[in-house]
Amino acid sequence: MKNQISETAVRGSGTEVPQATPEELELLHRYWNAANYLTVAQIYLQENPLLREPLAAAHIKPRLLGHWGTSPGLSLVYAHLNRLIRCTDAEVLFVAGPGHGGPAVIANVYLEGTYSEIYPNVSPDKAGLRRLIRQFSTPGGIPSHVGPPTPGSIHEGGELGYALAHATGAAMDNPGLIVACVIGDGEAETGPLAASWKAPAFLNPARDGAVLPILHLNGHKISGPTVLGRQSDAQVSALLTAQGWDPVVVSGRDPLTVHAAFADALGQAHDRIRNLQKRGRGNGMSGPAPWPAIILRTPKGWTGPASVDGVPVEGTFRAHQVPLAQVRENPLHLAQLEAWLRSYKPETLFDDEGRLAPELSALAPRRDRRMGASPSAGGTSGVAPLNLAPLENYALEVGVRASTRHETTRPLGEMLRDIYTDTETDPRFRLFCPDETNSNRLGAVFEVTDRCLLEEADDGGDHIAPDGRVMEVLSEHLCQGWLEGYVLTGRYGLFATYEAFAMVSASMTIQHAKWLQHARELPWRRPVPSLNILLTST
Amino acid sequence: MKNQISETAVRGSGTEVPQATPEELELLHRYWNAANYLTVAQIYLQENPLLREPLAAAHIKPRLLGHWGTSPGLSLVYAHLNRLIRCTDAEVLFVAGPGHGGPAVIANVYLEGTYSEIYPNVSPDKAGLRRLIRQFSTPGGIPSHVGPPTPGSIHEGGELGYALAHATGAAMDNPGLIVACVIGDGEAETGPLAASWKAPAFLNPARDGAVLPILHLNGHKISGPTVLGRQSDAQVSALLTAQGWDPVVVSGRDPLTVHAAFADALGQAHDRIRNLQKRGRGNGMSGPAPWPAIILRTPKGWTGPASVDGVPVEGTFRAHQVPLAQVRENPLHLAQLEAWLRSYKPETLFDDEGRLAPELSALAPRRDRRMGASPSAGGTSGVAPLNLAPLENYALEVGVRASTRHETTRPLGEMLRDIYTDTETDPRFRLFCPDETNSNRLGAVFEVTDRCLLEEADDGGDHIAPDGRVMEVLSEHLCQGWLEGYVLTGRYGLFATYEAFAMVSASMTIQHAKWLQHARELPWRRPVPSLNILLTST
Repeated sequence: MKNQISETAVRGSGTEVPQATPEELELLHRYWNAANYLTVAQIYLQENPLLREPLAAAHIKPRLLGHWGTSPGLSLVYAHLNRLIRCTDAEVLFVAGPGHGGPAVIANVYLEGTYSEIYPNVSPDKAGLRRLIRQFSTPGGIPSHVGPPTPGSIHEGGELGYALAHATGAAMDNPGLIVACVIGDGEAETGPLAASWKAPAFLNPARDGAVLPILHLNGHKISGPTVLGRQSDAQVSALLTAQGWDPVVVSGRDPLTVHAAFADALGQAHDRIRNLQKRGRGNGMSGPAPWPAIILRTPKGWTGPASVDGVPVEGTFRAHQVPLAQVRENPLHLAQLEAWLRSYKPETLFDDEGRLAPELSALAPRRDRRMGASPSAGGTSGVAPLNLAPLENYALEVGVRASTRHETTRPLGEMLRDIYTDTETDPRFRLFCPDETNSNRLGAVFEVTDRCLLEEADDGGDHIAPDGRVMEVLSEHLCQGWLEGYVLTGRYGLFATYEAFAMVSASMTIQHAKWLQHARELPWRRPVPSLNILLTST
Repeated sequence: MKNQISETAVRGSGTEVPQATPEELELLHRYWNAANYLTVAQIYLQENPLLREPLAAAHIKPRLLGHWGTSPGLSLVYAHLNRLIRCTDAEVLFVAGPGHGGPAVIANVYLEGTYSEIYPNVSPDKAGLRRLIRQFSTPGGIPSHVGPPTPGSIHEGGELGYALAHATGAAMDNPGLIVACVIGDGEAETGPLAASWKAPAFLNPARDGAVLPILHLNGHKISGPTVLGRQSDAQVSALLTAQGWDPVVVSGRDPLTVHAAFADALGQAHDRIRNLQKRGRGNGMSGPAPWPAIILRTPKGWTGPASVDGVPVEGTFRAHQVPLAQVRENPLHLAQLEAWLRSYKPETLFDDEGRLAPELSALAPRRDRRMGASPSAGGTSGVAPLNLAPLENYALEVGVRASTRHETTRPLGEMLRDIYTDTETDPRFRLFCPDETNSNRLGAVFEVTDRCLLEEADDGGDHIAPDGRVMEVLSEHLCQGWLEGYVLTGRYGLFATYEAFAMVSASMTIQHAKWLQHARELPWRRPVPSLNILLTST
């Protein structure tokens, strides 16, 4: 990579994230236990949320539906990000690629308090805990996936593939933000996700926030192994390195060992991000930034049943959804579930009133630094509206009728140019286009900005610069996904693409529309700017 | 990579492809000139195809439409593959990812003779040459892209992203076949193509043909640079290496130097492929095979005008389509076009009757070894139909009506199982599914086969084996694209996917339907098996 700086984070003096002490790790572990406990409780229980009584079949939901496998990993990442935020006061947006791990994310936003603030009936007490477990994946309750009802989320994670594109779009023009993006090894097999690894070619540390991919390899999809899950650490690292990332691997099955390694990896990643941004903002670097990334390899369904009916479960595809399927009917399963739940020692996590132990409560960040309360996930919060000039400014003079020819998109290009000019000091607009800005006759934008590409070269490129704000990449999925991430964090944009290729990303448009439809029913979600798509060459 | 063999091809003794002599390279170069000449002639000329008269404005088409930029690269690859085939008698299928380079592919199938056999009025003489140039990208003529009318093609290349998936599907269960797949650096930015690099995890040298990706980096898309085009050779190589390929780089702008290096790279790639297959078929290896790949870096619009009106063109994005745009109106452009055409020395390539010089004709392979006559692109040619058992075999006994519940896909799974059994010795059926074979209740197939994955591991995986023939990958694009490549080469298959995610690959389904619609109008194209899609969980 031409001109790529060699960035080695030096921990110690100057670091914002001190090494975690054994006491801190123990507390973190207990917090993780609390999240895992609430995850299992949501999947299985309809009564007895604190397990103060012996578990009985009547406490179990009639229909068990939820995804355990990915959940412990999501909760591990969330708990450690909490610590990072407390150490650094960073604004972190959490994107859960494995959105089917809904119970884990809900457990975490409940533990940090945002869930109860938004949904006061799910209060931080015994009654609230009962509602929390009963509502999950129940008719009339909440979906089993992360979605619009989940505080702090801008990403559904049902149709897999868009996590890293959403994260990248959210980071653009968001200089203080760190977007922590968990990517499952299932999602990593999709096309849109595979294309998204190119983000370092487009993310400018001088003006953009950071994307921190956490590639969570638990080895298995619904019923089969994953490609990356079976590859070596070296090979997976090489895949990310080749695309401009600077990955570290955290791997293990002993929780305290993983806690220590992950805390360290996260601290280093944060320091590297800030160093890259410092250098980028001081004009001290050129070329793409070697953004940190974490490859986290832990067992699927970690801390769940090692085996069920004599068949291995933890660490296998069988942990994907509900590891114990016959809990109401089979007393052995019921006993195993009870042992599993009690392994987290709920009596040490919650008091008899259902309140989280104060030493654990203290681990969550405060106010809007909590990821569930992220201002960036808050729609138009804090983002100024666009000052659009009157449309008449772009009107064409028509003298004699039917005497001249004009192209409709040329004046649109001029309008976009003026939006770029107007937002120059407060950047909140971008144009996204596969490679067709000029052929779509929107080229007037190049009077005031350029195409963005971090890698510089003397190759006859036209209007290409690391600080350009026209995003051209030959992937409708990336254009659409970046724009979704951009508008869902309150900014404005346009995706222009040939009509002939509109179907390529049509499924994403549908998913986005569903998100909006659901989100508008939630009074606490502020509106987000429209996602504008211009189909050309019709 | 566990157990991956270290495969180093040793040229020399035992090689099937001898090093090219200077005389051979000179002839190859002239063949390439002929292809480039015909490419430019197709884009520009409507008369004077042999340039025996001075070029005049009246010889130029009224509307210039075609893609020059990628064409010299496609023709270089094609000409060298011809030599490989003559040396080895291999069956090679040519997949032109940059399908917009239609004039280059047509030039090559014309030069090798297949075009005139299929379209006798485009004869290998002066009259035929005139028709060849006049029909291109003209109303009532042929499209400017590779498509169904192009002999030897199974790939349209209009909606970019599917070249490598098609190539991979074509290679499955096609043990003798080499699929040479040219991938542009534009297409390499798409999601489906990015996902397709995982092919080595699924291609089994013991039973499958080989895919030889030729990643052609000319640095530019329509109007912008490409991500890979601006990266170093080392970085692009690392991207492929990380995904299991064993790439070599051929880079340059001096034709004879590139000819020598590319001939060498292609010979080495062939030898490696045959070595890998020999070892795979002798049970001498385990784990994914490090398939060769070639990274070819040449100027965009190579051998075209270096500059036009004082602005650089060759090697820049300006060479993408028609480098000289004002040929009819601007005498300077006309003169420049004439010089460009004459630079290929057409008088040394074709005689006055329009016949290719015999020493060049001799460079094309014979009969159905010509890539335009590939039996694998010939639909059902040579592939036995499926012997389906009577549907009644899978009927459910219904005693008392409305008294029992059944799942419709379970008997379908039994039917698929029986197809697998019936095709065991002549494999020509596969099931493709993101990860849902079991949850779609098609699991009966696992009584007789497994999920295919080359990388082996002791991770609790269920029915996973390198010789499995159920293709599970969490990418609807890959499932659909592999199946398209499989059926377009005459074999049978089913893609089963959740209805909720049907839209992900809907654009591919539409493109495939368009292909079939166009192909059925061509009497010389044999029918291909239907592309079966089962939408489940409706």
